[in-house]
Amino acid sequence: MGDLVPDNTLITPDAEAGRALAIKVARLTIKAMQQDGEIRKKLRPQYAESADSLVMAGHVVAIEFATIAAANNYWR
Amino acid sequence: MGDLVPDNTLITPDAEAGRALAIKVARLTIKAMQQDGEIRKKLRPQYAESADSLVMAGHVVAIEFATIAAANNYWR
Amino acid sequence: MGDLVPDNTLITPDAEAGRALAIKVARLTIKAMQQDGEIRKKLRPQYAESADSLVMAGHVVAIEFATIAAANNYWR
Amino acid sequence: MGDLVPDNTLITPDAEAGRALAIKVARLTIKAMQQDGEIRKKLRPQYAESADSLVMAGHVVAIEFATIAAANNYWR
Amino acid sequence: MGDLVPDNTLITPDAEAGRALAIKVARLTIKAMQQDGEIRKKLRPQYAESADSLVMAGHVVAIEFATIAAANNYWR
Amino acid sequence: MGDLVPDNTLITPDAEAGRALAIKVARLTIKAMQQDGEIRKKLRPQYAESADSLVMAGHVVAIEFATIAAANNYWR
Repeated sequence: MGDLVPDNTLITPDAEAGRALAIKVARLTIKAMQQDGEIRKKLRPQYAESADSLVMAGHVVAIEFATIAAANNYWR
Repeated sequence: MGDLVPDNTLITPDAEAGRALAIKVARLTIKAMQQDGEIRKKLRPQYAESADSLVMAGHVVAIEFATIAAANNYWR
Repeated sequence: MGDLVPDNTLITPDAEAGRALAIKVARLTIKAMQQDGEIRKKLRPQYAESADSLVMAGHVVAIEFATIAAANNYWR
Repeated sequence: MGDLVPDNTLITPDAEAGRALAIKVARLTIKAMQQDGEIRKKLRPQYAESADSLVMAGHVVAIEFATIAAANNYWR
Repeated sequence: MGDLVPDNTLITPDAEAGRALAIKVARLTIKAMQQDGEIRKKLRPQYAESADSLVMAGHVVAIEFATIAAANNYWR
Repeated sequence: MGDLVPDNTLITPDAEAGRALAIKVARLTIKAMQQDGEIRKKLRPQYAESADSLVMAGHVVAIEFATIAAANNYWR
């Protein structure tokens, strides 16, 4: 399985992959909370075409990334 | 009992379970603050059908997950 | 005394108690900022019957819990 | 002096004092950003009589407290 | 490649460069979530000419910077 | 130079100076995102005369301060 965390791990080869994982994990949580694909599709323009909504979504990605970066010891 | 933290522990076998716990813990807090099940049911569409509300809920899950991930030493 | 932190400690026996403390501490801060009990009572439905407000309150609990969990070394 | 951090230190004798410092530090920042006391007085009911505003203010206190608690090694 | 993290690293020579990276990384996430350049251009005034939106964007930069600063051991 | 981080360092002599740096750094980010001084001047009353906006700005300062405090090992 792995509906919430792809490959069930926070470890990624590099920062770029860590960032992509942060975006993915944030989206999978939304999906878990609103499982109706039709509704999610309808909601998408609500945030992708509003500056504030995009910033709010970017905010969540930033927090997910902080966790993933710490897990990977910042790919130092 | 364990009304706020299932099994009274932050330790989970893997990242996937940690993520599921983050969602669960966030919901249990809402439940503790609004104990009337009828009202909670009425409120559910308010957030599950609004893009911004879903992102705000996902934000809380991200913070809960950061704590759980640290507790589990990131399942490294 | 102990108007802001019950028993003046962040240490709790387990995660469940830590979570309860997080909720308590968040509420005591609100109480300290709005000391008029009549006004607080009037405000309560404002947040307890709004999905977004409950999520915002849950957000604060998540942050308080992160601190308490770290203080307790995650009850590992 | 010490317009932003009372006594110029984050160290407090106990958790209760740390919490009080968190509230104080949050207020002093507002004061530094809006130095006109008349305007601040006018704004006070805006947040003290709105549930969401109080939660937002409590949110800031939670973050300040996280820093102060870490500074004090959680008064362990 | 490196669409999300420039040069695929969080390590920067100094704090100034770390701060610039935080702004860049926040913007690249927005870009990844809204890939239509025309829409992004249309949204820009929405946040750059609203005080609250700028503060919200600055909030995200602050979180990205916290991660980058930790990665660089605070350039101590 | 140093358009984003004054003196290009997070290290300050004490907590008071660290707090002042947090406010400064938050402002410099806003300035970098909205470089038109006329627009910034016009926006200032928008946040300095709204309780919620001031709290939101204080929130960002709290996060910047957390990073600076950690960088300085909390001036212990």
